[in-house]
Formats: sequence, C-alpha cells, structure tokens
Amino acid sequence: MKISSLGEFGLIKLLSEIISSEGADRTVEGIPLITIGDDAAAWYCNSPVETASTDTMVQNIHFTLQNTTWRELGWKALSSNLSDIAAMGSTPQYAIVSLSLPGDTDVDSVSQLYHGMAGLAHRFNTAIIGGNISNAPLLVITISLIGSSDGSLLTRSAAQANECIAITGYTGSSAAGLHMIKTQLSLDDETSSLLRSSHNQPYPRISEGQLLLRHGVRAAIDISDGLIQDLAHLCKASGVSAHIFADKIPIHPLVRNAFPSDCLNFALSGGEDYELIFTAPRKVIEDIKKDTGCPINIIGDITDGNPGQVDIINNEGTVITQNSHSGWDHFSPRKL
Amino acid sequence: MKISSLGEFGLIKLLSEIISSEGADRTVEGIPLITIGDDAAAWYCNSPVETASTDTMVQNIHFTLQNTTWRELGWKALSSNLSDIAAMGSTPQYAIVSLSLPGDTDVDSVSQLYHGMAGLAHRFNTAIIGGNISNAPLLVITISLIGSSDGSLLTRSAAQANECIAITGYTGSSAAGLHMIKTQLSLDDETSSLLRSSHNQPYPRISEGQLLLRHGVRAAIDISDGLIQDLAHLCKASGVSAHIFADKIPIHPLVRNAFPSDCLNFALSGGEDYELIFTAPRKVIEDIKKDTGCPINIIGDITDGNPGQVDIINNEGTVITQNSHSGWDHFSPRKL
Repeated sequence: MKISSLGEFGLIKLLSEIISSEGADRTVEGIPLITIGDDAAAWYCNSPVETASTDTMVQNIHFTLQNTTWRELGWKALSSNLSDIAAMGSTPQYAIVSLSLPGDTDVDSVSQLYHGMAGLAHRFNTAIIGGNISNAPLLVITISLIGSSDGSLLTRSAAQANECIAITGYTGSSAAGLHMIKTQLSLDDETSSLLRSSHNQPYPRISEGQLLLRHGVRAAIDISDGLIQDLAHLCKASGVSAHIFADKIPIHPLVRNAFPSDCLNFALSGGEDYELIFTAPRKVIEDIKKDTGCPINIIGDITDGNPGQVDIINNEGTVITQNSHSGWDHFSPRKL
Repeated sequence: MKISSLGEFGLIKLLSEIISSEGADRTVEGIPLITIGDDAAAWYCNSPVETASTDTMVQNIHFTLQNTTWRELGWKALSSNLSDIAAMGSTPQYAIVSLSLPGDTDVDSVSQLYHGMAGLAHRFNTAIIGGNISNAPLLVITISLIGSSDGSLLTRSAAQANECIAITGYTGSSAAGLHMIKTQLSLDDETSSLLRSSHNQPYPRISEGQLLLRHGVRAAIDISDGLIQDLAHLCKASGVSAHIFADKIPIHPLVRNAFPSDCLNFALSGGEDYELIFTAPRKVIEDIKKDTGCPINIIGDITDGNPGQVDIINNEGTVITQNSHSGWDHFSPRKL
C-alpha cells in the first residue's frame, strides 16, 4: 500500500500509533500537555534552561536507500540530533519530525522509519510530540530536538590553552562502515556488524555529555563532520589551536585490522562518529575515566596558536598535516 | 556568487549577520543564552508552558520560484509557523531554520530569503537562534518555532455544541492571489497588491490568538489547508459537527469583485489564508469584536452531529455541500 492511498491524515494516525507502541509518546516525567494532532505541541517547562538542535538528512546527499534501511534511517536521523544535545551536556526531551517524501512510498517503509526513530527516542526518554508530513520528489527528514538543562552547558567556545583534548569511544568506524557498504566488502561477521551499526545506528553520548558537565568540563563538540574539522570548529570558537597525536587517536581494533592503511584517514576525516571531543585538565579527564565504562582517550593538547588551527603530529614529533578543512562541508560533493 | 563558492561555514556567517541586521537575534526579553554557532541553541525558560510547531515548504510542491520571490518565500515559510503558534494563543519566541538547497544557488537569493524571514521574525519579537544548512537537488525549508504560554491554550478539541463559529479577517484572498499569479491575470494595482501579499506575505494572527484566550475562547485552528477542511479537523478533534452559512463567509470586496463566480470556492477550499477559526458563545464573540481592529465574523454554529461533518448552507437554508475533504491533502497532487 502506498502512502498516497492512505492519505496525509491516515498516515499521521498510523505514525502516532507507532510512536505510542514504542513508548515514545512520553518522557520519564510524563505525557506532554499537547502532542500530535493540534496546531502545535505543548509541554510544561520544568527546567531553568532549554536547548534545541535541528538536523536534516536528504536522500542521495546524506544517505541512500541502498546503503541504509528505513528503520536504520529513522534511528540515524534522530541520533544525529541527540548527539548535538549530548554535546551540550543537555537532556533530550521532545522531538518534532518533519518528513517530506514521494506519495508512492510504501506505508510499510514509513512505518519502519518511525519504528527506528521511536525506538531510539524511547531509549533516551524522548517523546515525539509533533511534526509535519508533506509530499516531495525525494525523501527529506528534518528533526528538531528540545532538551533541558539546569543552566550549566558544554559549549564550543570554552576551551583553554594547556587543557588536554580527549574523546569518547572510537573514531573512524562510521566512515569504515560506509566504505564497507558502498564497496560491498565482505568482512567477518563481528567486524561487519560493528561497522554497519557504527554507520547506520550510531549511539549518541547523552549520559557521557552529562557526566562531563558533572566533572566540571566546559568545552565539547560532537563529531559529525570529522574529527579534525569539528575540533577546528571548537578551536576557532574558543580562539585557540590544537596539537593532536596521530598515534593516540582511538581506532577500534576491528577497524584497524580491516583497514590498516585507511583507518587513520577514516578516524581523522570520516565524520558521523557522533563521539564527543572535549577539553579539560588531565586530572579531570583521569577522574572521568574512572567514572564511566565508555572509553575515554586523551589525543592531544589545546595550544595558544592560530585560532582554529589543528596540527596532527606523528610519533616522531613531526607535523604531518595542518589541514583543518578535511571533513564534511555540505556544499562539497561527496560520494555516498 | 554561488553558495558552493562561499562554503557552508561562510554562508552561516553571512546569514547570522543578516539575522542580526534585521534585529532577529533577540526577543523582547533579550538575547538567548546560546545561538547560531554551537551544537545546539539554548534559552532561559521564563514561562510555565512552551509550545512548538514545525512546517516545511518544498519547491514545486508548496511554491515555485516563478510565483514567489526569495524574500517572500522567507516571510511565508516563517509565517505558516507563526500562524500555528497563533492558533494556540501562544507567544512566538525562537525559530530554528533548516534549509536544504542546491550548491549553485546564488548567495544573493539566500540572503533575500533570510531578509524576508528575519524581517518578519523581528516584527513578532522572535529570535532566529539556530538551524542547519545542507545540499539538496531542490529547495526545502523547514522551520520549527518555539512559543511560550502562561498555561492556557487554544486547542482543536475544545469546541462545544451550540457555540458560534467565527473567523478573523477574510478567506480566499490567498487562493485568489495564487490564481492571479499563475494565470498572469492583469488586475488593478490595489487588487493586485492585496492578492499578491495575501498569497506570498500572509500576516499571522498572533495578537488575535492571544486576545481570544483573554476573552475565554478555548477552541481554535488556523486556516492552512482550507476553511472547510480545517474546520472539519477542529470538529473531529472536538467530537462535534458544524453548520456554515455560505453568505456569512467574509470575502474581501476586491476579491469578490475580481472573481465573482470563483470567490466562494477560494474562500471555502483555498487554503493558506492563515486566519483563525474559533468557537465561543455569541456574547463572547461580540465582546471580542469591540476589542480589536481585526474583522471578526460569525459564520455558523457548532452542532451535535456526526463528528467532523461540516455542512455549508445557502441563504435558502439548503445544504449545498457536506464535503469535509475539499482542501489541501499533502499527497493529493495540486497545481501551483
């Protein structure tokens, strides 16, 4: 059955039911005041500060339906927004979904998309409270996510010279996953499964962002465009520069094993890892390490140089690149 | 100059400057805590309840660049969201803009779009606090708008049998404007100017929505899909039906004069009027009339019939249509 047969309002009813069935119609605090079906959604403000991010995924620009299933797509579209909220140390609360798609899309495909999105929303106690559905010649998903905060936030502009730079988890796994899917590379099951989920079902670092704040960290950014580029954004916003040690970059052993020559490039410039880069004194980072099961690695230092410059240094102490612009620019064509 | 030459981050910088130059970087209460340039925006919550709406405009589905200038498009994209917030009786506060567009778009065109949007935002004390820009084969604009409320809201579900149905302003002017633009109809300057602005620069009924609430009105919806269809949504949500008197529908004299035979159809099914339909006892509506310069007209009654049914009655008391589905369905093709 095509969505054009079901009609706009039939589709909205079906998707509301999916949201409820996945438990994504409420937060831990309860049901929002007004949800899907009115002119706007409404909720009680229970926190002194709120945060909001938005992200768009355009078919054949950010994803293809060959490389990503509908369910993965729903997950990934929400995940990139959750990651922005994580990078503020904020708590996600409410998602608003704007979906544009062709009328001949199968109802089952859109249902899968919503199951993926609502399932992830529920894991992070986020309610999907509204949205918009419209016709378009290709699939475009925009999600806006509202978060809450007690007032302390991680920002891009708070990094200071002499702080260490650290990172959660591993980088390069998403780019390695995209490479594997695109080239239909056959790898062992464990590697293949890790890479596919790293690319299509990234796990946002919500609790880690909050943990950083509790330890007094003030500067962070998530890796969406690539480690070097996102670190350069953070440095530019803070008026500082960075030294990164290539051999300290955390690359998953399975990724290193599968792509021994490409893995560093994936890790530095690949993007869509949705890990957090943050800066703090070494002692603070050591304390954070003891307080989480998430891998935390120090990869370099904030320095007092040219704002926005990121130098990558090899294990002989030589700068191997100063390029701060290798990463995702939305107007530079890139093959998916 | 094309936006691909300027690059994503150069474009974001330029658009931030336009937002500031139009005064749309702040609300009446002041500058938000964090705006464009971080992972998410943030603001202090100063109201007990917040509201949020979202709307998307897709090129060649909701607009064409032949019928609408870039500046008008920016205005209109924000206006449809402001109208949703108006229909809740809420106060607009923060807008988040997600823009997808081809890399060969002129920088000047995008600048015009933002001037149109930021200019309207400023008029309604709304700050544009964040967004996303990405590449796409066609232009798609999604705006999410956050509003504030003291806790009382207009909803679609509060209409009660025996209340009168009233409407702000005139309906059908937007559809008449689209017809004029599409057919390149030559009309006198006054009519032409009214129709063009009705279609491309609709004025959201923010202060009127708040006025309704102050007078104790509880049920409202804005006209985006067409008077009959939107009234049917309100009736369905409230479990009631409606009688509308065709000769009470407020049609602007210039529209009636230019389109004597089509004007009623434009008014009932045209859509994009962004006026408010609301229900209340007659006495309340008479009081509201005295309290505003905006035309307010009673057009019918809420009845205790089949939920969602809207009967249009002519001046002989005959039901001329019961069709509650003539209006915009996003998966029914419509010629722009």
